[in-house]
Amino acid sequence: MNTGFEELRRRLGELQDLEKTAAVLGWDEETKMPALGADARAEQRATIARIAHELHTAPELGELLEELRPFEEEHEFESFEASLVRIARSDYDKAIRVPADLRADLSRLASHSYRAWLNAREQKDYGVLFPFLERALELRRRYVECFAPYDDPYDPLLDIYEPGMKTVEIEPIFDRLKEALVPMIGTFAEARVDDSSLRGHFPRDAQRRFSLLVLERWGMDRAAWRLDKTVHPFMTAFSPSDIRLTTNFHEDSLHGLLSCLHEFGHGVYERNVDPRYTRTPLAEGVSSAFHESQSRMWENLVGRNLATWRFFYPQLQEAFPDHFASVPLETFHRALNKVEPTMRRVDADEVTYSLHIIIRFELERAMLGGELDLRDLPDAFDAKMREYLGIQPSDVTNGVLQDAHWSDLTFGYFPTYALGNVVSVQLWERAEAAVGPLDDQFERGEFTTLRDWLTENIYRWGRTFSPQELLQRAAGGPLDPEPYVRYLERKLNDVLGAAVA
Amino acid sequence: MNTGFEELRRRLGELQDLEKTAAVLGWDEETKMPALGADARAEQRATIARIAHELHTAPELGELLEELRPFEEEHEFESFEASLVRIARSDYDKAIRVPADLRADLSRLASHSYRAWLNAREQKDYGVLFPFLERALELRRRYVECFAPYDDPYDPLLDIYEPGMKTVEIEPIFDRLKEALVPMIGTFAEARVDDSSLRGHFPRDAQRRFSLLVLERWGMDRAAWRLDKTVHPFMTAFSPSDIRLTTNFHEDSLHGLLSCLHEFGHGVYERNVDPRYTRTPLAEGVSSAFHESQSRMWENLVGRNLATWRFFYPQLQEAFPDHFASVPLETFHRALNKVEPTMRRVDADEVTYSLHIIIRFELERAMLGGELDLRDLPDAFDAKMREYLGIQPSDVTNGVLQDAHWSDLTFGYFPTYALGNVVSVQLWERAEAAVGPLDDQFERGEFTTLRDWLTENIYRWGRTFSPQELLQRAAGGPLDPEPYVRYLERKLNDVLGAAVA
Repeated sequence: MNTGFEELRRRLGELQDLEKTAAVLGWDEETKMPALGADARAEQRATIARIAHELHTAPELGELLEELRPFEEEHEFESFEASLVRIARSDYDKAIRVPADLRADLSRLASHSYRAWLNAREQKDYGVLFPFLERALELRRRYVECFAPYDDPYDPLLDIYEPGMKTVEIEPIFDRLKEALVPMIGTFAEARVDDSSLRGHFPRDAQRRFSLLVLERWGMDRAAWRLDKTVHPFMTAFSPSDIRLTTNFHEDSLHGLLSCLHEFGHGVYERNVDPRYTRTPLAEGVSSAFHESQSRMWENLVGRNLATWRFFYPQLQEAFPDHFASVPLETFHRALNKVEPTMRRVDADEVTYSLHIIIRFELERAMLGGELDLRDLPDAFDAKMREYLGIQPSDVTNGVLQDAHWSDLTFGYFPTYALGNVVSVQLWERAEAAVGPLDDQFERGEFTTLRDWLTENIYRWGRTFSPQELLQRAAGGPLDPEPYVRYLERKLNDVLGAAVA
Repeated sequence: MNTGFEELRRRLGELQDLEKTAAVLGWDEETKMPALGADARAEQRATIARIAHELHTAPELGELLEELRPFEEEHEFESFEASLVRIARSDYDKAIRVPADLRADLSRLASHSYRAWLNAREQKDYGVLFPFLERALELRRRYVECFAPYDDPYDPLLDIYEPGMKTVEIEPIFDRLKEALVPMIGTFAEARVDDSSLRGHFPRDAQRRFSLLVLERWGMDRAAWRLDKTVHPFMTAFSPSDIRLTTNFHEDSLHGLLSCLHEFGHGVYERNVDPRYTRTPLAEGVSSAFHESQSRMWENLVGRNLATWRFFYPQLQEAFPDHFASVPLETFHRALNKVEPTMRRVDADEVTYSLHIIIRFELERAMLGGELDLRDLPDAFDAKMREYLGIQPSDVTNGVLQDAHWSDLTFGYFPTYALGNVVSVQLWERAEAAVGPLDDQFERGEFTTLRDWLTENIYRWGRTFSPQELLQRAAGGPLDPEPYVRYLERKLNDVLGAAVA
């Protein structure tokens, strides 16, 4: 055994332990912590982050990675050994580019700015956030400069979430989506889909029981998963065999159920990473877009699918007999697939969601490039809402202040949501080409074929390949919006056809 | 501001963050973690412990503490400044006495040995644990040698949990307890107290609701406390304003309720430490015996008190109407105070509990001193059970294998349980002398006077004083078993009197 490689594993193992520990602190904070625990928790998280950052940027780690170059070359590209050295070096090179004081400034500002965002929303006053946003943009520009030279100043931000992705690749995809999706909104509107069956009184306990019933059918095993209550749903994994889903059930809607299906997609990805990768940086989903492709796949492609509901609908009726006993399956399914512009991104359907994202991507680029003065951001936001979605936000809390993402400095993250939609259908088409029509299986309550194909082609690899390499291997080509557009057109026909019939 | 002192605060703050983080990992493991998360969690805990140990024994910390001697002397003994330097130095001196490799051996053995204990219990075979126990004793002897010279080899072990306490102080106290308690068992037995009212069917939800009703009356505020389910009840605090109680409600008994009252005592102590001490080693209970004195006080002196139940019993009857509607308060109260030897320590009442402890203390000393061959431990255990409690364990799982405490290497811990009983009544007598009879207040549902007295005299000080200093200040003297003996004699008369009447 190579002693340098063993030393690398030891260092990366400790780093993973700290990162997963930070995740435990975060999960507890969001789901369990009493309110007054917040101050001490902030200190605990800051200390763990500081120590992790020290280990992450230790010069000894850099030297070790250099020493391991011949070792890496002796091993196959996709071997555990070569992949671990390669990914660790890439993470290290990225980490040391950013000076410690800039990192500290960014993290301090993020927490102040987040509180300013909460205040701005309360006061419905963009002016409260403005100075923080100005400073955020300034710090993010300094961050970008750490990665010079670059083709586009947006590239280093995108690279945080989508390693290797370039802005120039995204632009034509988003242009194509705008061209295809904007007209769809009008066509859907004409169908006047009735979604009143999704509103009513749904007791939380029954929602939870039914959600677990679906998730367990899909592959959630209680020995490795939990589902807890939170304000904003998320998934976090403390190892491939400790997966925490969170959701928020509201008694007047089934949003909590749908968010369970979404978070399951994130969870099933982490759960099926090769267990040999545990305690290494290979042991997680390869990028935000790939992760989102899985949450979207299980929420939308599986979870809003008629065949899936042919299997589950009788059990849903049993869970809420007063509500669904007299609602035909097809009515429920159409309601689940209704398309209608909403002011808030998080309430959006499959068609309008990507348009919400494109608005934000375009505004982020304009802010970063200096073409858009931050003073004009609220108006620019509303103008794009009118242009792409045909609606005017009722006030700033439903307009420019609706997301936390700019106040918390996560510029560059938004596009990965829409790219997730694109990737999800690319993978779906390849899966069906390989294993045959999935609907027949879903109707019988069988979801293992899809999960196994995804595990074999995506999940198990963790971060072994770059997102681009993985997409090439699994979907046979680069990012391509056409499968997603075709999928929405098919859905348009199905739902409109059924609504008209 | 003294820069050396600021540096000390920074170092101690980080250390506290790591220790509290380790506590979060432990709490999650016991209350929430899916079973398959165990391996990764063990690694996470080991890494945090290793880093904490490095910070704890850093030579720079030792130098800093030396530099701060004049600063310490400039400040009053009980000032925050002098206390922090003093306690940090005492912790540091203790930590560096033990070589890192011995600490690592101890912690590795503890986890292997704990698993061996579980196996030994399953196979009802002491032989499975024996080699681990032999090794544990050997390592503990090496640990003791790190603290030479000592008066008694048991002293350094006791000192882990009860700083400054000497074995020679405990012996006469335990002798006095044996002399007083052993005969009480027979007297109680003659009273033939009927405790059948404590058995029945008690739905978990109702137990939880009633337990919270009591705890909130006693001072549990939801903004800073939680109550969760676990296998073995415990309390852990992540800061003075983040207190986690755990319990285990069984449908056939009220043990879970009583364990809530017990853990509340631990929690109320941590909750009321001076908030200025947060993120310093002063911010916790001063010793195991003092901590146990508080869990015992709230469980027994308050929680098994007739006046307390005059207030709560109507609400207990409301919570379990089928069960308690026709049971008179006095019958319930007598049942709650029944004395009867049990095989298992954790099931013991107020009289026999201390005898269980004395058995273990005597055996630990004999093992450590070499007078007792480990091969003879099971027989020696049973012999003492017959001698002090008049019963013979049915098998090794109810005999020598009933506790995890030897397998997990916590020799020296047991005595603090019985000392907690002793201290609890010493404090109680002083509290009543200062604020008047507490029963009148309890009957009216008022518990703040007691809590405030304890906060003022014990809780708020954290680790400012040594246990001996604190007891002297609060109870006016050293450890004294007489108040505890008097209390049990009074209870004997009350319960027997009532039973006879």
